[in-house]
Amino acid sequence: MTSIDLNADLGEGFGRWQLTDDERLLSVVTSANVACGFHAGDAATMRRVCEQAAERGVRIGAQVSYRDLAGFGRRTMDVPPAELAAEVAYQIGALEVFARAAGTRVSYVKPHGALYNRVVHDEEQAGAVVDGVLLADAALPVLGLPGSRLLDLAAKAGLPAVTEAFADRAYTEQGTLVPRGLDGAVVTDPEAVVERSVGLARTGEVTSHSGSRVEVRARSLCLHGDTPGAVELARRVRARLEESGVRVEAFV
Amino acid sequence: MTSIDLNADLGEGFGRWQLTDDERLLSVVTSANVACGFHAGDAATMRRVCEQAAERGVRIGAQVSYRDLAGFGRRTMDVPPAELAAEVAYQIGALEVFARAAGTRVSYVKPHGALYNRVVHDEEQAGAVVDGVLLADAALPVLGLPGSRLLDLAAKAGLPAVTEAFADRAYTEQGTLVPRGLDGAVVTDPEAVVERSVGLARTGEVTSHSGSRVEVRARSLCLHGDTPGAVELARRVRARLEESGVRVEAFV
Amino acid sequence: MTSIDLNADLGEGFGRWQLTDDERLLSVVTSANVACGFHAGDAATMRRVCEQAAERGVRIGAQVSYRDLAGFGRRTMDVPPAELAAEVAYQIGALEVFARAAGTRVSYVKPHGALYNRVVHDEEQAGAVVDGVLLADAALPVLGLPGSRLLDLAAKAGLPAVTEAFADRAYTEQGTLVPRGLDGAVVTDPEAVVERSVGLARTGEVTSHSGSRVEVRARSLCLHGDTPGAVELARRVRARLEESGVRVEAFV
Amino acid sequence: MTSIDLNADLGEGFGRWQLTDDERLLSVVTSANVACGFHAGDAATMRRVCEQAAERGVRIGAQVSYRDLAGFGRRTMDVPPAELAAEVAYQIGALEVFARAAGTRVSYVKPHGALYNRVVHDEEQAGAVVDGVLLADAALPVLGLPGSRLLDLAAKAGLPAVTEAFADRAYTEQGTLVPRGLDGAVVTDPEAVVERSVGLARTGEVTSHSGSRVEVRARSLCLHGDTPGAVELARRVRARLEESGVRVEAFV
Repeated sequence: MTSIDLNADLGEGFGRWQLTDDERLLSVVTSANVACGFHAGDAATMRRVCEQAAERGVRIGAQVSYRDLAGFGRRTMDVPPAELAAEVAYQIGALEVFARAAGTRVSYVKPHGALYNRVVHDEEQAGAVVDGVLLADAALPVLGLPGSRLLDLAAKAGLPAVTEAFADRAYTEQGTLVPRGLDGAVVTDPEAVVERSVGLARTGEVTSHSGSRVEVRARSLCLHGDTPGAVELARRVRARLEESGVRVEAFV
Repeated sequence: MTSIDLNADLGEGFGRWQLTDDERLLSVVTSANVACGFHAGDAATMRRVCEQAAERGVRIGAQVSYRDLAGFGRRTMDVPPAELAAEVAYQIGALEVFARAAGTRVSYVKPHGALYNRVVHDEEQAGAVVDGVLLADAALPVLGLPGSRLLDLAAKAGLPAVTEAFADRAYTEQGTLVPRGLDGAVVTDPEAVVERSVGLARTGEVTSHSGSRVEVRARSLCLHGDTPGAVELARRVRARLEESGVRVEAFV
Repeated sequence: MTSIDLNADLGEGFGRWQLTDDERLLSVVTSANVACGFHAGDAATMRRVCEQAAERGVRIGAQVSYRDLAGFGRRTMDVPPAELAAEVAYQIGALEVFARAAGTRVSYVKPHGALYNRVVHDEEQAGAVVDGVLLADAALPVLGLPGSRLLDLAAKAGLPAVTEAFADRAYTEQGTLVPRGLDGAVVTDPEAVVERSVGLARTGEVTSHSGSRVEVRARSLCLHGDTPGAVELARRVRARLEESGVRVEAFV
Repeated sequence: MTSIDLNADLGEGFGRWQLTDDERLLSVVTSANVACGFHAGDAATMRRVCEQAAERGVRIGAQVSYRDLAGFGRRTMDVPPAELAAEVAYQIGALEVFARAAGTRVSYVKPHGALYNRVVHDEEQAGAVVDGVLLADAALPVLGLPGSRLLDLAAKAGLPAVTEAFADRAYTEQGTLVPRGLDGAVVTDPEAVVERSVGLARTGEVTSHSGSRVEVRARSLCLHGDTPGAVELARRVRARLEESGVRVEAFV
């Protein structure tokens, strides 16, 4: 029986500001990418999300970011590698305290926003993220794009490298994401997203931008939580996956 | 044989800014109160100080603070207890990652600046700090003033409560600190500081502001590291303690 | 003909996070308290709100705060007066640039959150806020509670002191606000809020918590913009005021 | 008679942390690049430096930066142009309040650190900085490298574009700076720095890295203030310029 993990970004408020519907998302996903205070996520929110995730058996991941609250971690920054590694470790450690207090552990690491995109190709920063993970825990899985420098370097360092796909993003014939900003980069039709999710999970393939079939092997699907109708769509994806005989479960 | 711990604040730079002479202080103290990013202390500095402390066998403590870089944690803040507890745990967790990476652990917690002063009397905030420590580790010692609400509540919660004294501060006849700002609150003569250190360690007493002898039982002496001549004075204190037959060693 | 000003807090998002429905509120109020970056309000938001306010002829006020994004300026802080004065001036200056670029000026200053409450009674901080306003502009009106230290000291310093009232808050027989947290402190019935608004504007009186009539002279009514239904209620208040023959217009 | 301006970065502390020896530097330079709170510079420091500069007749410039206290503005950031323009204007406005309170005005704008380097070549960010300056004041001079995109776009927008040179940096045969990190990029011999200063001021030429003479027309020389011996060196540069018949005076 095929199985797939569903992950989403959670706890992305800060103090007075809320963004993600954490409670409802936690009823759908199997892995929660929890913001750790650098792009979002105050300490009280981190604690609450860890408690709620632990209650539901949802895995907790550290969603590490550039230090950039004003830009929500979406602005690429040339952080020197030694600083970046230390900042990644800092965030993992801060989240670990709340995961442990809730009776569980940080189960994986996933970079956020601009850092996520940068470490697809940037050797130096990808290496720094891996160094940061190793500082925190030499056995912690790293979640990212198949073929990214991040996952390659993580695997070389002995860290479990876990691949993810996006059912609401268009893919090129080479199996890479069509960059945001290009026409058709985002799949907006909910039914199409649901069908692509099932296809990705069952066959490891998806229809590319140009119409061909392309292989996208992914152990996890990333669902977006901060758009209108996001939770409803996530529920439909999960329901259809289960109806299709796919087991929805965390990758760890 | 009598023994005493020597603690000092370290790692109190932030990015480009330096403050404490960490390397030299680490050659004198037995316990390092490491800033955790809320009043000072970037991640790379935290990592470096933890590595240097571990090499020298100096214990690492989490110097937790209000979230206030602009005010260096010296401005009292009315932080709601649940937020404060979470912020304390966050800081401990972030430091723990670097302590573990250096082959050791966070060995104790000491509040910084305005928070340190507030939890002497403030039941609610003292309780919040204790809650934060418990979230992180139910066996972590707390370092503070004898008779403070913080130490009382820590002890009630089952946490080791460790007392400290200040050889360069005047004491009242009741054994409390003469508030800064009052005449004679700070002892500036180095020889006097050295003698008071030895007296505190050997007899558990000090001469009060009014000339009487007063009991100040302390397991640790706090040395200041950010004033001119601070490291030299710290060395004299340590040398004289050892000449006087006092064993200088960490309290844990 | 009686006239009244309507003010509300605007621009209280930060980067990715939104809070206030600025566009719709600007169609109701005559004075906009714009967040200046210390409790909320990034530069791009400040610019946008100033442009929209200027287009509609809504007055722009600097909503100055403690430096506390994590706490949304709601946590009292013991900021030394010289620092507080400088921080107040800094915020006014930053907003002024966008007001001028939009063809207008900052027309008044109103403290936010914990600072607003503190300067009702605290001589030192009230004086610091006045000093900060004077640094920026020796003729800038200050908006606050009647009888507050802030308005008293502002008036003594030659600044126009403008009073405001809250139609959705209960008043004591002495004309002061019933503290939040006490039973009945907030008036939740929309019709009652509308009627109290008209009463305050027309008679300068309101029914106190205990049922007596009490004088609350106010040149402005503060409307809340961040609660569900807030904009609708604000519109009803404005419509009823106008139907009752009250002219709704800015105080400057 | 030839004249030259001397500029240096000032006010680069933050709260408890100090960096630049502001008082002594102000006795040497004619233009002070004052940090505005984004990479350094709290409000109280900004106020103090403006007062001291005004007393000595030193011109006040806004040293605008990326929002990055942790990185001291030295990490390149991909800030969207509209945000960057607003952030530049915000910083100028904040400083203007203190310049006016001291009886003067902000007389120019100079980008700091990574932003300074980026706008040498980056059309989009250079344009955003110019837009930010225009928002604040359509006649404010911009200080930067000759041939930079920043100065070109500033000039096109009608802003006075003022060139500066670095007597302690090596130049290529094309008159551009030898990048830091390359061998010999920084001139460390004080006497050489003094001689190059005089040469730049009197002839508009300097000896390039390869030994040829190269033209570097500059209306201002940038002196560094945060290195050991910096103030002494600055004094020698100024004294030698004056002995050589160069008038040292602000460019505005």
